[in-house]
Amino acid sequence: MAGSALVIGAGDATGGAIAKAFAATGLTGCCVRRTADKLEPLIADIKAAGHNAIGYGRDARKEEDMVGLVEEIERDVGPLEVAVFNIGANVPSSILDETARKYFKIWEMACFSGFLMGREAAKRMVPRGRGTILFTGATASLRGRSGFAGFSGAKHALRALAMSMSKELAPQGVHVAHVVIDGAIDTEFIRNVAPQRYALKDQDGILNPDHIAQNYVMLHNQPRDSWTFELDLRPWMEQW
Amino acid sequence: MAGSALVIGAGDATGGAIAKAFAATGLTGCCVRRTADKLEPLIADIKAAGHNAIGYGRDARKEEDMVGLVEEIERDVGPLEVAVFNIGANVPSSILDETARKYFKIWEMACFSGFLMGREAAKRMVPRGRGTILFTGATASLRGRSGFAGFSGAKHALRALAMSMSKELAPQGVHVAHVVIDGAIDTEFIRNVAPQRYALKDQDGILNPDHIAQNYVMLHNQPRDSWTFELDLRPWMEQW
Amino acid sequence: MAGSALVIGAGDATGGAIAKAFAATGLTGCCVRRTADKLEPLIADIKAAGHNAIGYGRDARKEEDMVGLVEEIERDVGPLEVAVFNIGANVPSSILDETARKYFKIWEMACFSGFLMGREAAKRMVPRGRGTILFTGATASLRGRSGFAGFSGAKHALRALAMSMSKELAPQGVHVAHVVIDGAIDTEFIRNVAPQRYALKDQDGILNPDHIAQNYVMLHNQPRDSWTFELDLRPWMEQW
Amino acid sequence: MAGSALVIGAGDATGGAIAKAFAATGLTGCCVRRTADKLEPLIADIKAAGHNAIGYGRDARKEEDMVGLVEEIERDVGPLEVAVFNIGANVPSSILDETARKYFKIWEMACFSGFLMGREAAKRMVPRGRGTILFTGATASLRGRSGFAGFSGAKHALRALAMSMSKELAPQGVHVAHVVIDGAIDTEFIRNVAPQRYALKDQDGILNPDHIAQNYVMLHNQPRDSWTFELDLRPWMEQW
Repeated sequence: MAGSALVIGAGDATGGAIAKAFAATGLTGCCVRRTADKLEPLIADIKAAGHNAIGYGRDARKEEDMVGLVEEIERDVGPLEVAVFNIGANVPSSILDETARKYFKIWEMACFSGFLMGREAAKRMVPRGRGTILFTGATASLRGRSGFAGFSGAKHALRALAMSMSKELAPQGVHVAHVVIDGAIDTEFIRNVAPQRYALKDQDGILNPDHIAQNYVMLHNQPRDSWTFELDLRPWMEQW
Repeated sequence: MAGSALVIGAGDATGGAIAKAFAATGLTGCCVRRTADKLEPLIADIKAAGHNAIGYGRDARKEEDMVGLVEEIERDVGPLEVAVFNIGANVPSSILDETARKYFKIWEMACFSGFLMGREAAKRMVPRGRGTILFTGATASLRGRSGFAGFSGAKHALRALAMSMSKELAPQGVHVAHVVIDGAIDTEFIRNVAPQRYALKDQDGILNPDHIAQNYVMLHNQPRDSWTFELDLRPWMEQW
Repeated sequence: MAGSALVIGAGDATGGAIAKAFAATGLTGCCVRRTADKLEPLIADIKAAGHNAIGYGRDARKEEDMVGLVEEIERDVGPLEVAVFNIGANVPSSILDETARKYFKIWEMACFSGFLMGREAAKRMVPRGRGTILFTGATASLRGRSGFAGFSGAKHALRALAMSMSKELAPQGVHVAHVVIDGAIDTEFIRNVAPQRYALKDQDGILNPDHIAQNYVMLHNQPRDSWTFELDLRPWMEQW
Repeated sequence: MAGSALVIGAGDATGGAIAKAFAATGLTGCCVRRTADKLEPLIADIKAAGHNAIGYGRDARKEEDMVGLVEEIERDVGPLEVAVFNIGANVPSSILDETARKYFKIWEMACFSGFLMGREAAKRMVPRGRGTILFTGATASLRGRSGFAGFSGAKHALRALAMSMSKELAPQGVHVAHVVIDGAIDTEFIRNVAPQRYALKDQDGILNPDHIAQNYVMLHNQPRDSWTFELDLRPWMEQW
């Protein structure tokens, strides 16, 4: 039974590219988003390339969903070699207008789900003394910003989770890393909400999801004497 | 009607000292913890010193409690000049054993409550163009650590909240700051769980709550041309 | 024999204000810049206020000057209780045009001089188990910026010096701290080179040197159970 | 004329491995240390593998040496595609004992040389709108430590140089990155001074220079829409 690579948040371009890239290494891409139907084109793509993938409709915020999912993958697909958490929730608000409900939901999606995935993956990987757990971060992981109390809070907390897990789990053979994406990604979302930015694509001014994915695979392949906890990715023309 | 200073988490030594220190400046110390009864000695102390204080039993995690509390203070006591968020929730666990319930509760207490207080305070202070909002941080605000995924996550998120609020609100006249406490504080808790550490008190090896409080008052009194967002406090003999 | 407060870089508004503030606490302000003559108005001011001050023309980059100066102060004035390093050297250049000579000089002025002062002060303070050593930092202490390879390099190195000294000397009773000034200060320099910025003075949009100085005195007065290593100072309306 | 990869500090195991790795990509490895003779085994190794390399005896702290070297390489070998700065100078001292001469020399070797290389490389790369400049960092690049005022100062300054150069040069097509090595490397030096640590080699507890080198090549190969400025490398069992 070959290994599996779990990608939570496989719905967007980045998650999809990460799933494809790990599937291309021989792992079965276990792709998760809330609605399984929407995963069909991605699964078809991966299979058309001659690789293995399965789509799962699960709510990553629900403990029973995540516990059951990892159980199912380990039983039916193969040992979890890689787990990637790739859910964002970047919805800005003035602190004066931020609702408690939205502040909570951003954290629940962008951090709590990551905790659930991270814990379940760790439970399987630690006894085997191997495996890679990867978290997608953002500029907001590193500093607060006007209007981003909710998003930067969730991303800061996710980074603290990743760092705490790395310090605990690396000495047990499990590689945990955090990738800080600083720039717009080539996605439908950016094409729609930031067309001027999207136009920079011709000059490589926005991040190509496949190139992001190559870094995730590279992290998984690092020999254990030289593991990276954190790296940033940024288009050459990005101001920072 | 004189101003008020709200202290959420006035139950511990630090919160109590902060309430006393602001009461001594002439503000009415509005002291909050879950059970109002337990605040009686603190309120009595402040009154015995000739200053004003009121105890409120409120659950800082509940939106209606916090909204109602700030409304009540503004109506009955006086304009909120200072709001201090001082709730911690330092309960370590291996990531392998951390329950979803506990991970959530740590965040709810140590971060979500801070959001509620911060937002309600900001809503009152911004229209007046003045006021100070202070958050108590910890070493865990700045880095993750094995066994501290929950606590460091909540503290990182709280710091991101403070920074986001500072960047949004300072240009509107409201001073937001974050105090990183790096060391053991002279509290019952430390006396009980870390007696060897507590014994360093004779050599000033643990933080005196009154000295911490002086820094909070100092931050409130800074003229607006030179506001501090962040400072750390650490006993001289602390390793870091 | 009362104590002394050494201020290296007393030539600008900030250094002058710091010297005045420490003199007002009863220490003799030992004011240093390259040309002693130019210190006369500052010394006169301090004396007119009924406090003590002495001007010294010394080149802070020269080891023999700094060794001799501290020796002279300890012998003739009084034990060094405070030493403040306040020399900047903010001269931007493209990396393509930066000369080796200028890159070196910026480091020599803004960092090497600080090392010399810090070491000489530490040598006197450690045997007494008391004293405060303060370094003036800037935004450039925390991150590099296009055109600021030289200045940010020197400021980063100065901060590393301060942090290394703090970790070594605090357990020996000597308080070392670093103040990050993030904004324009009310100086002749800013008035001349950035008049639009200077005009924000009416709205407290630039830092008042006397207010900066109060923070230095506050740091010196902190009880040793709660020492600050770093704080930032920023006008309320500053973008960051 | 094929391109060249300059490695300053090719004398140690890491620099040598980096030179080999870039030579294996088809670039001519231009290896620099103070004494050219000592480079002979490295050059022979690279040639034996069928790749190209040249040894240069140069003092990286001397402007004329570095200017002349880059001129010579560009004229005789091929356009500089990669420039790597890999000189350390980790010699701890108490601040009380640190000599001005040593403090200066550490900075000169570990930072000033890096400035010279960086500037000369940038001058050649910017007009072509391509090229990669890589700096080797350390834990000391990120924080000060008792006894490490000199080394951490130099490494902080080098990181500020790298960041300033990245912000200026990336929008001109030149990729600048900083690699933070946090752990002991498999070198003669570690074998001699830290034999217990060296013994961890059997468990992959120290960094393999070839694995470090793979990350440098990976950084050079990153497509420009997703460039990394900084990554860390650390053995799995390293405490941090």
